[in-house]
Amino acid sequence: MKITVLGTGIVGQTLAAKLASLGHDVRIGTRDPAATLARSEPGQYGNPSFRDWAAANPKVRVATFADAAAHGEIVLNALSGAGTLAALELAGADRLAGKILLDISNPLDFSKGFPPSLLVANTDSLGEQIQRRFPATRVVKTLNTVSAHLMVDPGQLAGGDHTMFVAGDDADARRQVSGWLREWFGWKDVIELGDITQARGMEMYLPLWVRVFGAVQTPTFSIRVVR
Amino acid sequence: MKITVLGTGIVGQTLAAKLASLGHDVRIGTRDPAATLARSEPGQYGNPSFRDWAAANPKVRVATFADAAAHGEIVLNALSGAGTLAALELAGADRLAGKILLDISNPLDFSKGFPPSLLVANTDSLGEQIQRRFPATRVVKTLNTVSAHLMVDPGQLAGGDHTMFVAGDDADARRQVSGWLREWFGWKDVIELGDITQARGMEMYLPLWVRVFGAVQTPTFSIRVVR
Repeated sequence: MKITVLGTGIVGQTLAAKLASLGHDVRIGTRDPAATLARSEPGQYGNPSFRDWAAANPKVRVATFADAAAHGEIVLNALSGAGTLAALELAGADRLAGKILLDISNPLDFSKGFPPSLLVANTDSLGEQIQRRFPATRVVKTLNTVSAHLMVDPGQLAGGDHTMFVAGDDADARRQVSGWLREWFGWKDVIELGDITQARGMEMYLPLWVRVFGAVQTPTFSIRVVR
Repeated sequence: MKITVLGTGIVGQTLAAKLASLGHDVRIGTRDPAATLARSEPGQYGNPSFRDWAAANPKVRVATFADAAAHGEIVLNALSGAGTLAALELAGADRLAGKILLDISNPLDFSKGFPPSLLVANTDSLGEQIQRRFPATRVVKTLNTVSAHLMVDPGQLAGGDHTMFVAGDDADARRQVSGWLREWFGWKDVIELGDITQARGMEMYLPLWVRVFGAVQTPTFSIRVVR
């Protein structure tokens, strides 16, 4: 499948590399490909520089947001929450139209330091903002509740015995995304929450995630809905 | 121990009955004890009327907020989020001073129907509002993330293999509450998140809880922090 990943941080890198390893034709979008490819500083979490990552993943083509968006049959939003809407404008509503967009971002507000609050919460969500702005795109919120390495390999934690959520207005898109989560990444327990307003709950879980991270001292954690 | 439970809904009833069954001297607080004791309509969730509940739990004395607050060495806030601050005023800052207050309430806003949003979120929380208003009381947020029947008997779900959180400014109070959760109710996995600002994450989990409830179709669920 032709897949677009928007965002070249650790989430975008992790998703793009995994999808390419599965044989998909992946293009990763950024504002300025030449500048991104020149990045030689290590990543925020001790991961390799983008330049080194790109050299190790030659099948993933680095492109502008617009070129990347034109390429994919589906689009994964791995941008920061704060940067998402502006970057999606550059990707272009016409190039996103008719496609499923997996929204993985969280509207974290680090402007007042750590821990972050949310840029939008309670009566709205980033997932809904994206869906309102791009009504011809089928937005499905998912994967925003775990670290990047767990998104693509949940089995590395407790044999995958934990839960992922999916929310979006289009029931067929939700089912397709749930299937991809199982098929591509090995998620076993996927709960479809309902329409895109359910992105509120998924995003509002982040303040708890941040503090549990502080308490358990590892990003390799997740929640299981025990029932 | 002399224990005060504020609030006569299903949460207050469940906590008071369990604590009395453990031998504690429990007083349950309400605005108008005579009116509460006259309630003969069944509870919101098909539970018995308060009149029938009180008849079945004769050791739990029904009292005004003030009388109940004066009684307890510790206080459990099982009021609705919307009614908490006004009721705590009636309980009285002097009668709450020096005591640990377990805040179990959620600031749910049902004014626009279902699903509820939160009355306070993101940069503040009900737990913090209580702590600011009653600075001489040691507020510890806990138990707000599960249904009443699971609060007092987590073992009925997956043998108790799920997680409870605790947050409060006073480290000694947090430790005492964690101990009571284990000793009284049988909680096995208790995570101390930190100061009372962590009530934000615990309360902001509720919109996800509400929707997972809709998806799994039972209130007998909880989350386990898998790590």
